[in-house]
Amino acid sequence: MLSTPSADLAPLLAAIAGRIGAQHVLTDPSDMAPYLREERGLYQGRTPAVLRPGTSEEVAFIVGACAGAGVPVVPQGGNTGLVGGQMPFGEVLVSLARLDRIRNVDPVDMTMTVEAGCILDKVHEAAEAAGCLFPLHIASQGSCRIGGNLSSNAGGTAVLRYGNARELVLGLEVVLADGRVWNGLKRLRKNNAGYDLKQLFLGTEGTLGIITAAVLKLFPRPVQRTTAFLAVPDPQAALDLLKRLRGEAGDALTTFELMAAFGVETVLKHMPGVVRPFRDTHDWYVLAEFSTPTRAFDLAALMEESLGAAMEAGEVTDAVIAASETQAANMWRLREDMSEAQKHEGGSIKHDVSVPVSRVPEFLGRALPACMAALPGLRPCPFGHVGDGNIHFNLSQPVGMEKAAFIGMWETFNRIVHDIVVDMDGSIAAEHGIGVLKREELAHYADPVGLDLMHRLKAALDPAGALNPGKVIAS
Amino acid sequence: MLSTPSADLAPLLAAIAGRIGAQHVLTDPSDMAPYLREERGLYQGRTPAVLRPGTSEEVAFIVGACAGAGVPVVPQGGNTGLVGGQMPFGEVLVSLARLDRIRNVDPVDMTMTVEAGCILDKVHEAAEAAGCLFPLHIASQGSCRIGGNLSSNAGGTAVLRYGNARELVLGLEVVLADGRVWNGLKRLRKNNAGYDLKQLFLGTEGTLGIITAAVLKLFPRPVQRTTAFLAVPDPQAALDLLKRLRGEAGDALTTFELMAAFGVETVLKHMPGVVRPFRDTHDWYVLAEFSTPTRAFDLAALMEESLGAAMEAGEVTDAVIAASETQAANMWRLREDMSEAQKHEGGSIKHDVSVPVSRVPEFLGRALPACMAALPGLRPCPFGHVGDGNIHFNLSQPVGMEKAAFIGMWETFNRIVHDIVVDMDGSIAAEHGIGVLKREELAHYADPVGLDLMHRLKAALDPAGALNPGKVIAS
Repeated sequence: MLSTPSADLAPLLAAIAGRIGAQHVLTDPSDMAPYLREERGLYQGRTPAVLRPGTSEEVAFIVGACAGAGVPVVPQGGNTGLVGGQMPFGEVLVSLARLDRIRNVDPVDMTMTVEAGCILDKVHEAAEAAGCLFPLHIASQGSCRIGGNLSSNAGGTAVLRYGNARELVLGLEVVLADGRVWNGLKRLRKNNAGYDLKQLFLGTEGTLGIITAAVLKLFPRPVQRTTAFLAVPDPQAALDLLKRLRGEAGDALTTFELMAAFGVETVLKHMPGVVRPFRDTHDWYVLAEFSTPTRAFDLAALMEESLGAAMEAGEVTDAVIAASETQAANMWRLREDMSEAQKHEGGSIKHDVSVPVSRVPEFLGRALPACMAALPGLRPCPFGHVGDGNIHFNLSQPVGMEKAAFIGMWETFNRIVHDIVVDMDGSIAAEHGIGVLKREELAHYADPVGLDLMHRLKAALDPAGALNPGKVIAS
Repeated sequence: MLSTPSADLAPLLAAIAGRIGAQHVLTDPSDMAPYLREERGLYQGRTPAVLRPGTSEEVAFIVGACAGAGVPVVPQGGNTGLVGGQMPFGEVLVSLARLDRIRNVDPVDMTMTVEAGCILDKVHEAAEAAGCLFPLHIASQGSCRIGGNLSSNAGGTAVLRYGNARELVLGLEVVLADGRVWNGLKRLRKNNAGYDLKQLFLGTEGTLGIITAAVLKLFPRPVQRTTAFLAVPDPQAALDLLKRLRGEAGDALTTFELMAAFGVETVLKHMPGVVRPFRDTHDWYVLAEFSTPTRAFDLAALMEESLGAAMEAGEVTDAVIAASETQAANMWRLREDMSEAQKHEGGSIKHDVSVPVSRVPEFLGRALPACMAALPGLRPCPFGHVGDGNIHFNLSQPVGMEKAAFIGMWETFNRIVHDIVVDMDGSIAAEHGIGVLKREELAHYADPVGLDLMHRLKAALDPAGALNPGKVIAS
């Protein structure tokens, strides 16, 4: 294991500056500050230098030089990670932001080759320009970078139909811990020529290698889309509705998000321009979207018909179908602005958990009262991708409570929520990853055999502990 | 590395018999024969014993006991593998065939938990009984077993829409090289709690662990299906047609298979009951199928309309849409009986290759004349999953040539075909895997960095070389 650099780094940084340009070696605290600030304020990064290579070869040079000098590195994309995986705590920081070229878009192969630093929205735009869809959609898409999305196996609102980030990748280019480059940038839909090495780097948070480029899968671009905001009596009704819509629409059901009243009201209270969807308030809401790349049928008519039947069955108590792009955008803001709006309600303790889809109502039925019992006045704000069994089980502090005192209860709520999740054969880290935030939680709950396998992988690929030490598993 | 067992195995086998029952320890040559016969006659397996455990715990006991005795093991499912991965060459054979329980089917979660020895067709039937679809379809589905499908990352005719076997798995239970069991049988759609360990065992052909059970993804069952058999002028027209049908039907395009005239004629000549699709013969054919889980539109009408436009554009020169299940089944036999029919035409040399989808016509345009030039009278029989860029580039011997002499040219044709594939950034092993058949080819063509990573993984997970030694990579 490498230690945090304490020796004089000047010769190393000079060598790197000679290769990547002195202007891309940042050591001034004010230049480095944006890379070291964690979005929620949970962490303050520390680093002797922020390095900004411009090519894969420069990344390889940096990693090789640092390995030679015994200096560990932390890779960073858009610095939007929610578990601290992108934060250095004394290591050298390697920003991938300048590797932002889209190398190739092929609408026949339905592939796109991108560098790790491409902002997700740019990837979307390039796909659309070629008449295709890249379906990874997450709230931070305006600033997150694809390399980070892949190394954290991002999820988001389209997993129901298109899968997680891992499933959207055909090939990778990776800088290994010793500075070698593994070129696995294949554009192939089928390839069983040996072990599928890209899996080692997808979702491993930069601890086994640094992703520098990727071949992404594209999909036919939807030509019809219809969005509905629905009131449902309870989570079980939401689940029944999910089954119904999946049965009616099949692959055309591309979004199914559940929200509790508190979150929706919080958005309406704090986010300018968001319009109330119904005159009445309800306990639970669903955002459902159909989209399809075919014009062979009338998607809006199918939505209307399906919702009519759902209302008759009592699964839906109120419904509005967007009549315009503006109305659809408003519905999406009710869901996507929730984390932002919640910041205005004081401290929040967050859990990114999943259970089998069928058990979401049971999970909420157990976790909500257990948390309320632990802290009277607590305001739970559960929402998320119920079609994937993934709930963002967020908790806003009681009104008037000291924020720091509430945040101090994080461990307490972790134990309550995660004990229930693990008892239900769920995951304590559904889509945000482990990073440092959940490393001890993972160690606490993980099957010892699985944890041993993770350590063996780390030892096999990064024996010196040069890459993102202390993330995911203890170094 | 463990050596082929030569010591007296009696005490080991007695201990195993004590645990799994003496009737499940086969040592009589005639009892063992079916496990040691490779389908194409390319290999003759050798083993001191065939072990037939009935539970995951018994598999773990066997692997632990063998590891303790320094005796390597080879796992085997349905013995349908095409690259010899399931064949022992002196090692003890562990058959998973008795682990054939379907533990759970959940139509809400859309998951199914199955043991490794389930025959693929049984998995299909259990999914259908629950109103769902398990979409892995390969020619051997009546006898192959799901554990083998997963450990070889099987492909097949539905990859275009549903992905390879790897993408159809949510969780695994695996016996490790030292006999420990890793329980990763999660039914979760999202799970980023540490490294995704199941990826280590999917597609690694039993060299890193033995899959004993899996949680599979299910999909909404299609309620409409329409099948067409088409004549196309050439592979480029097939590709243009693929683009058109994908554009019109989106996700409803679930099959797109290309066949050369020789293969279709061979099926018609040798397979009883298969009916000629057109009065005229053509150089190239396509089998296209639309299927969808929604009743929202008329799939047959969409197929008719799309094919009408394709004929006007010259992409299709003749077309027939199945008017009954019987006609559809006949169309499928023209494609699926091809390997069987080819056996009647003497020796065949096979290549299971892939290139980027857009380059399939170029690949055929280069590989066909190169092979013809190497052996006048050669009868190429290319067919396959053009929607995935995967061509089964099979070559039937010239009429009248000595079969053995032709098979002796396998190396020669490997070099011709694989050189072109690698030059086109393709794969020499698209869906059948490496096993022993292509181990030297992989070593010849693989990127040294990638090969080094494979060896590191093997050393990390199976340091003693106890599991399927010599498969995929040299032991």
